[in-house]
Amino acid sequence: MGLSVRIDLEGGGRIGPGKVALLRAIAAEGSISAAARTLGMSYRRAWVLVDDLNHLFAEPVVVTTIGGGQGGGAVLTATGTAVVQLYEAVQAQAAAATAAAQERLNHLRTPG
Amino acid sequence: MGLSVRIDLEGGGRIGPGKVALLRAIAAEGSISAAARTLGMSYRRAWVLVDDLNHLFAEPVVVTTIGGGQGGGAVLTATGTAVVQLYEAVQAQAAAATAAAQERLNHLRTPG
Repeated sequence: MGLSVRIDLEGGGRIGPGKVALLRAIAAEGSISAAARTLGMSYRRAWVLVDDLNHLFAEPVVVTTIGGGQGGGAVLTATGTAVVQLYEAVQAQAAAATAAAQERLNHLRTPG
Repeated sequence: MGLSVRIDLEGGGRIGPGKVALLRAIAAEGSISAAARTLGMSYRRAWVLVDDLNHLFAEPVVVTTIGGGQGGGAVLTATGTAVVQLYEAVQAQAAAATAAAQERLNHLRTPG
């Protein structure tokens, strides 16, 4: 039981569980390639999603550092962190507000 | 701007905007084939979704009538109507509960 939300932003563009999971993984892993590996996603796919997100908001959500001993890394910006937190707030608020209707749907699910 | 919700039911199975749009179209059109046409979906895809939904709930959500002058039709059962109404309730409640956080996300979207 649970709820997943997709937010269609004004002016186009969507934020859903897949993009937010990628942002969370980048914050945790410190690079796009490690985040992609963690999620079982191709590096190419992860890069396309990050590029999409970076063009969606007024400020980039992820910035990368090229080179260095570890071959570069990626971190969330303040905007990226805010996007994750606001998405999580939407998700939690939506789940709380709809618990009763979800319960009624689940009662249709199984006999009795 | 808007919110789409996907509900993961207890014991497995999902209800999202695609399946609910198909149920609404079946109710409006009176057959699976006409509903599929309206949604630009193959008949095979629509049939698979209906079959999935019919096995998801304790009672079928769609019943079909074979033959007759129009070559058979399909209607929602009481359970099917309840599923559509409860999904729409979840959608509306989730949208209302998250308006402020969605607004904050939209403020990150565009400069100013």
